[in-house]
Amino acid sequence: MSIGNVMVGQSGGPTAVINASLAGVFAYAKNNGAKHVYGMLNGVEGLLEGRYVDMLDHIKTDTEIELLKRTPASYLGTCRFKLGDPATSEEKYAKLFKQLKALDINSYFYIGGNDSMDSINKMSGYAAANGVDMRFMGIPKTVDNDLVITDHTPGFGSAAKYIATALKELIRDASAFNEKTVLVVEIMGRNAGWLTAASILAKGEDCTGPDMMLLPELLLDEELFIKEAGKRLNDKNTLIIAVSEGLKCSDGEYLSAKSGSTVVKDAFGHVQLSGAGHNLKEMIRTQLGIKRIRSVEFSAVQRCAAHISSRTDAEEAFMAGHYGAERAANGDSAKMVVFKRLADKPYAMGLGVAPVSDIANAEKVVPAEWIDKKNYTVTDDFITYALPLIQGELSPFIINGVPRHLVLNK
Amino acid sequence: MSIGNVMVGQSGGPTAVINASLAGVFAYAKNNGAKHVYGMLNGVEGLLEGRYVDMLDHIKTDTEIELLKRTPASYLGTCRFKLGDPATSEEKYAKLFKQLKALDINSYFYIGGNDSMDSINKMSGYAAANGVDMRFMGIPKTVDNDLVITDHTPGFGSAAKYIATALKELIRDASAFNEKTVLVVEIMGRNAGWLTAASILAKGEDCTGPDMMLLPELLLDEELFIKEAGKRLNDKNTLIIAVSEGLKCSDGEYLSAKSGSTVVKDAFGHVQLSGAGHNLKEMIRTQLGIKRIRSVEFSAVQRCAAHISSRTDAEEAFMAGHYGAERAANGDSAKMVVFKRLADKPYAMGLGVAPVSDIANAEKVVPAEWIDKKNYTVTDDFITYALPLIQGELSPFIINGVPRHLVLNK
Repeated sequence: MSIGNVMVGQSGGPTAVINASLAGVFAYAKNNGAKHVYGMLNGVEGLLEGRYVDMLDHIKTDTEIELLKRTPASYLGTCRFKLGDPATSEEKYAKLFKQLKALDINSYFYIGGNDSMDSINKMSGYAAANGVDMRFMGIPKTVDNDLVITDHTPGFGSAAKYIATALKELIRDASAFNEKTVLVVEIMGRNAGWLTAASILAKGEDCTGPDMMLLPELLLDEELFIKEAGKRLNDKNTLIIAVSEGLKCSDGEYLSAKSGSTVVKDAFGHVQLSGAGHNLKEMIRTQLGIKRIRSVEFSAVQRCAAHISSRTDAEEAFMAGHYGAERAANGDSAKMVVFKRLADKPYAMGLGVAPVSDIANAEKVVPAEWIDKKNYTVTDDFITYALPLIQGELSPFIINGVPRHLVLNK
Repeated sequence: MSIGNVMVGQSGGPTAVINASLAGVFAYAKNNGAKHVYGMLNGVEGLLEGRYVDMLDHIKTDTEIELLKRTPASYLGTCRFKLGDPATSEEKYAKLFKQLKALDINSYFYIGGNDSMDSINKMSGYAAANGVDMRFMGIPKTVDNDLVITDHTPGFGSAAKYIATALKELIRDASAFNEKTVLVVEIMGRNAGWLTAASILAKGEDCTGPDMMLLPELLLDEELFIKEAGKRLNDKNTLIIAVSEGLKCSDGEYLSAKSGSTVVKDAFGHVQLSGAGHNLKEMIRTQLGIKRIRSVEFSAVQRCAAHISSRTDAEEAFMAGHYGAERAANGDSAKMVVFKRLADKPYAMGLGVAPVSDIANAEKVVPAEWIDKKNYTVTDDFITYALPLIQGELSPFIINGVPRHLVLNK
């Protein structure tokens, strides 16, 4: 069965493997009779402006598909764009669907997180309401791992692998001096602490891992925390703290917003956070009098470090795109591809789809029973869950000493 | 010829490959009749306190030696310790040499940068003045690449490879949105811009690399810079700026010290810098009105990212240790191992030694003729110089998804 013409877009924050999902959609479409595999430039925002390419004109070889899998961020460009409700933004929808019909699109794919699934939900709703025969399929993507129903989300495993790897190296670095040393590492995650929790994966026979983890699922009791940090520093020389960018204090205020940091919001009204690590560092420095103290922000590197991406993550991201395309070709619509865990050891993962309306705008946080509040850590259940997701390496194609990427020449 | 008993220490800031040099000294000593290969814990500061181990008790297998080569930071621990002049700190020297004699040390190795070479210089001077028959050999180490006489310094290549790789990934990330975007990346280098210049290695057929580089060798003319940045932002959507932590403004003040950042000094009186990237970002944001602007500090990760270390660098670091041990065994003293470039393409490197007194406390900056001041970049001569140093990968030993390290159980 031919998939017909395809339109695919990428949305939201870049990840190390979002292009692997794009490669999956593309490979399926190319091998299943698509005459055109259109890629929106900068997501639906670009499509509204008539900006798209036919990926078949750009990606000709298997080598290029493999390169795409190894290229971080969004090959097609991305956007953070509020499509609005069909009721109030009828004009936008009319414009979008006029284009889609003119291009004779059969299947529409959007690779992204909660907000992107909201877009898919609204687009498919509009199509149904207007009798448009077109498939809409969401492909999950977010380093935050906060999509519901799916076991996990492509992008998370690679970010987790970078965080665990870099943190382990930083722990070696911080332990090199024979002095009381505190290292605060600030990790992404607005409301969900999955990535902060992943810092535990640095732990092993050769590494103590983070001593304390501060997940945004719990409010920070500053007094208790400082007391515990001081106690631990009596027992050991090096204290490693992983803190989520989205941590809130007991008064409900963002830690990052303390001490005069500025709060900036994006198009979706999400607070853009930074400064939690810095502020925690200052709190410890002033209250415990530690001189050798450093805060490190893993910054955007954690979400785009394709050079150490998880092979499991990259292959699953590819499969998610490929499987989503197959399901759409078989008539599914208004769905998102989801992962279903079949077993932890040995790890086995199945694929399925779920109604995108159940996923849009919902958020999955780290379960309370996986957070060991008293000890500022996470339980073994979390490790059992996360460890399979960072396994394996996808060797980069290295040219002149640095990884090669596939770049779109528009 | 037996090398006799060995004392070896690591000093100064950690790197991704300082342990490879330690492995080189150890392997030579072990294979050439050393009965004891003592390792100072936390450098000469620890030795003064009588803290050392016999590495032969700890490292038994070839696998462990290979693991040591892949372990970042300082296996033995490090220090920033001012030994002082023999004239004024006679007591310290007497104590050190009493220990060295008690342990029947034949050769003393110190792996480090300028300050460490100063230690070697003073120790060997003291030995000569007091008729002590002992060899003193410096093994070069510093990500800053600022040691004189030697073509380059182990540690630089791996830091450069991480910087080029991560920057390239960040450039993909920053280019994903269809908006005027500025990315400022702050890179290590107090007075020498080698690592900031290495950001150019991100450039390739698939990447424009950094648009502007601000090396500490030149003062920042803020007005000219903002004018040029604004001009470039008229022509392109994404502006990538690599800035050295040690950049000074035209008034001679550190950029990092502007806007109320604090200045902290280490034991050697070196200013601890941070904030140059942040302050440059604020300058651009307020003067050019760019909203999508981000500053990223590569932080300590850049110096300890062994997971993407340069194989050339790691092998050379090993060779430096091994060769230094061989030269000491053959009677050389008061020397540092140096690299002599034989050819750029194909790259060929020779080893030698130079008087440590010529190296101690001197500093090599990026040559003025390699800096293209007008275009805020470096010349092809720099690329020819640096490119061979980031070639090859030293596959980490990966267990449970993260690189395994060798850790000393004291």
